[in-house]
Amino acid sequence: MEYNGQLAQSYEEIYTLKNNELKVVFLGGIGEIGKNMTAIEYGDDIVVIDGGLSFPTADMPGVDLVIPDYTYLKQNKHRICAFLITHGHEDHIGALPYILEDIKAPVYATKLTLALLEHKLMERNMDDYELIPVEYSAVEKIGGFSVKFIKMSHSIAGAVSLAIETPKGIIFHTGDYKIDFSPIDDRRMDLGEIAQVGNKGVLLMLGESTNVEREGYSMSESKVGESLDKIFSANIGRRIIVATFASNIHRMQQIIDLADKYGRRVCFVGRSMENISHMAIKIGELKPHSEFVPMDKANSMPPERLVIVCTGSQGEPMSALTRMASDNSRIKVGQGDTIIVSSTPIPGNEKSVYNVINNLYRKGARVIYESLAEIHASGHAYREEMKTMFSLLKPKYFIPVHGEYRHLAKHKELAEQMGVPSANCMIAEIGDVISIKRKGLTKVAQVPAGQLYIDGPNIDDVSGSLVLKDRLHLSEDGFMVVLLNLSIDKGGLSSPPEIIMRGVNLNDDMLREAVGVAEDTIAKLGIGKHDNRAEIKEGVRKALKKYLAGTARQYPIIIPVVMEH
Amino acid sequence: MEYNGQLAQSYEEIYTLKNNELKVVFLGGIGEIGKNMTAIEYGDDIVVIDGGLSFPTADMPGVDLVIPDYTYLKQNKHRICAFLITHGHEDHIGALPYILEDIKAPVYATKLTLALLEHKLMERNMDDYELIPVEYSAVEKIGGFSVKFIKMSHSIAGAVSLAIETPKGIIFHTGDYKIDFSPIDDRRMDLGEIAQVGNKGVLLMLGESTNVEREGYSMSESKVGESLDKIFSANIGRRIIVATFASNIHRMQQIIDLADKYGRRVCFVGRSMENISHMAIKIGELKPHSEFVPMDKANSMPPERLVIVCTGSQGEPMSALTRMASDNSRIKVGQGDTIIVSSTPIPGNEKSVYNVINNLYRKGARVIYESLAEIHASGHAYREEMKTMFSLLKPKYFIPVHGEYRHLAKHKELAEQMGVPSANCMIAEIGDVISIKRKGLTKVAQVPAGQLYIDGPNIDDVSGSLVLKDRLHLSEDGFMVVLLNLSIDKGGLSSPPEIIMRGVNLNDDMLREAVGVAEDTIAKLGIGKHDNRAEIKEGVRKALKKYLAGTARQYPIIIPVVMEH
Repeated sequence: MEYNGQLAQSYEEIYTLKNNELKVVFLGGIGEIGKNMTAIEYGDDIVVIDGGLSFPTADMPGVDLVIPDYTYLKQNKHRICAFLITHGHEDHIGALPYILEDIKAPVYATKLTLALLEHKLMERNMDDYELIPVEYSAVEKIGGFSVKFIKMSHSIAGAVSLAIETPKGIIFHTGDYKIDFSPIDDRRMDLGEIAQVGNKGVLLMLGESTNVEREGYSMSESKVGESLDKIFSANIGRRIIVATFASNIHRMQQIIDLADKYGRRVCFVGRSMENISHMAIKIGELKPHSEFVPMDKANSMPPERLVIVCTGSQGEPMSALTRMASDNSRIKVGQGDTIIVSSTPIPGNEKSVYNVINNLYRKGARVIYESLAEIHASGHAYREEMKTMFSLLKPKYFIPVHGEYRHLAKHKELAEQMGVPSANCMIAEIGDVISIKRKGLTKVAQVPAGQLYIDGPNIDDVSGSLVLKDRLHLSEDGFMVVLLNLSIDKGGLSSPPEIIMRGVNLNDDMLREAVGVAEDTIAKLGIGKHDNRAEIKEGVRKALKKYLAGTARQYPIIIPVVMEH
Repeated sequence: MEYNGQLAQSYEEIYTLKNNELKVVFLGGIGEIGKNMTAIEYGDDIVVIDGGLSFPTADMPGVDLVIPDYTYLKQNKHRICAFLITHGHEDHIGALPYILEDIKAPVYATKLTLALLEHKLMERNMDDYELIPVEYSAVEKIGGFSVKFIKMSHSIAGAVSLAIETPKGIIFHTGDYKIDFSPIDDRRMDLGEIAQVGNKGVLLMLGESTNVEREGYSMSESKVGESLDKIFSANIGRRIIVATFASNIHRMQQIIDLADKYGRRVCFVGRSMENISHMAIKIGELKPHSEFVPMDKANSMPPERLVIVCTGSQGEPMSALTRMASDNSRIKVGQGDTIIVSSTPIPGNEKSVYNVINNLYRKGARVIYESLAEIHASGHAYREEMKTMFSLLKPKYFIPVHGEYRHLAKHKELAEQMGVPSANCMIAEIGDVISIKRKGLTKVAQVPAGQLYIDGPNIDDVSGSLVLKDRLHLSEDGFMVVLLNLSIDKGGLSSPPEIIMRGVNLNDDMLREAVGVAEDTIAKLGIGKHDNRAEIKEGVRKALKKYLAGTARQYPIIIPVVMEH
């Protein structure tokens, strides 16, 4: 059955027809950056790769988080054997605390990934979950699949790719990765191990696409350490503050090692920085040289003996660095400080990041940030690294993942350059169910997929988006509630219309005229008949809308309210 | 008199004390990108350099434009001899249509700059203005100043720097510039002419800072032509669409020349593209080879014989390229199109630009954009070019302009590296009045400065910002109007409270409970006394606020309205 353009009504419709097919269901992370989630299914069994969130964009005011629509997983919950998590970044684990409330399936991942996930589950007071730690290179039998977890380099420790052996062949999901020949890990990624999978034969490769626009090779994480070393050596006698991602344990380790080398002690500032460093030490991923300085002791330390490692490298409003920059922290920043912002602004965060940097400069601090120094390395493969993966894996089929559409399109082109036949490459969109057969990749169905908004304690879909539409309109134009007190006795208004408004740019004259417009409309329509209340409301709304657009060029939400007595 | 921290009450206070001082008044464009405006004054005379706008940021919903607070100019309008405009970009001319309504002073600029300005003045139906065209290298006597307009290279034709000779010495304002040895102009910038000013002695240099974070030299505009030529030659047989800034006449000229070389005709699409190309041809800045194709004929042209030059390179919502990408244009884009996005996203526009690019890819078009090809050149000097300027001008004093604080700080460092003594460099902020004396630069006063919002037909300052605060709150949290019908006879509510809300995420149960909270509050407070209406409103507001924050984590603007009868 080819896809006929109809949305599948239920899983049975898809499932009963295709019991012996190998299928991939794309639920998030393609055609977008964020909320990665992909299901692999064969026969009765489904494994779900990752369950990530994304952060709200400007068109989602007031939304806390966005997670993938997981209707399809709920409909098929009894078939789900496991969640396989490639690494512990928010866009790969952040939706699980919500999804695991509905779907009881074990989660397989390496220990740091699980520690980060468990912290989130505890924050939501969950206790009914099963986390199964895996070792690098381990092979786990999960349902009808056999899954190998292969160590990869990334900007967080514990990242793996997945070689999923199915009855039809191997599906290889790269996860997020880079090829780093001098990482900070105890253990390097083993290209031979990946080649072994390739030599066995890869049916389908799912490859991450983030940096497909960048030529060459990504910088090694250890190069960042060299740059930081130069900065430490040039700033002896000054306090050093480094802002970076709390999840980048390797960056943290390098800073701890440099602190030791230069006779400084380390103080972690910011909630997630404190939490994650604590957690990483507990599981042995982070190795301190001496005791950390608690934040309340930081001010009494000689500045030249201290390194503060803090959150806020993305200019997040409540983060440690943002608070320091706006005099809203116990850490007072000034001329004696050298501040290193060790990250690149994520698209959309540029304004906030530069705002913080501007304010730090205003305080007289030395600020070192990415435009000017090699103090950050991307965690994602550049084009030459992607080519290396194609060369190692030699997949029969290829579908790019983890990217906006242009990234996927470029990655598909790259696959073709590397010898994957064009007909064997496909760009999928979320909701697509792709069947993998000897004759080719086919879209066989479309399942519900999209965004769920987390706003307050609840998860919303459609109602949430109506609320959002109102919020967007309110943000541009404000609102105007018009109270119309009708008196049947008087045959008209018992008092002048009262206007309550916010966010509307009217001067007093205009406001008086608006009241007049409402009065005139009611005088014209009359209130004799009881059945014209809807007509009165609509009439007043239209007349005010026209007046406000014409005279004041204001376009608020107008809500007339009729009261009568 | 040193600056004593008090805001000057009137210009007399500043003026009478410092009649014979040379002063610079910074009214916009420092500590920010956009709305450039700087006044130079000596004795009775003031000249104003530029009068630009900036575009609203995410924290200014519903605002159309932002212009500098020009209170100081209004207070001193009889002293203003002229506006001197460095070039025709919006951030240098966009506020003039508003300012010239209040201040009648002639505007000096080169012919393209004036043509662009005049177009804006006519759009606002203004007729009382005086525009004085200047030639490159011309020297104009203006009040007590003598101003030389020196040709510079920039991403718009007609750009000049200003050498303003004052009784105390020369102030050199670079304007926006790059040093381009192979520009598209008929005439190159003449470093010798700048050196001549430097050799005469520059008292104060005001230098633009945009690209101070970039090492080396900017790319020449003609290099863009070479890249475009390669793309034209690789896309014979396909339709070519180039999106770029409408004001970049040199880019336009290069595309027109390539069209001629490859046997294509040119069609301009997008309002500003059509306007500006028309205007530029009229004044001889743009030289066509053949007649342009009108938009309604574009679809009937053989695709391989056409180049469409259009607006939308910044992903602007109503622009030509955005409309093509979203099937909202008469130009239908598809597999036969090669689309070149010849610009870099301005910070803040990344999401919109990439959205458009993703959608063009989805249609099957080939898309070439800046991450992957040399198809755009910045119009602003890189560090080595800035150094060249210091070397040519050898200023005694230096104040960086046109940049956020970090740019200014870096530019000041660069000046020091280039030999300007640290004590002779200063970072100013908007509103600062800086006196220039032999003994040094001193801040002598602070005048009103900041943003005026253009929202609809009016200019607003404080009231506008209150409206904005409400809009921001509304956008995050929505509003709730609570109608309380009190009956003195009944001694309580005559009907249940009615709640009108938008943008609030409540389910039906929560809404019912909220009504109950309002009822309970009124029952508790009682309505016996007539003097407790404010208390009732505040009581209901607080009770609802607490309920909504606790149960629903919603924080709307709550407005109780009491009616009684």
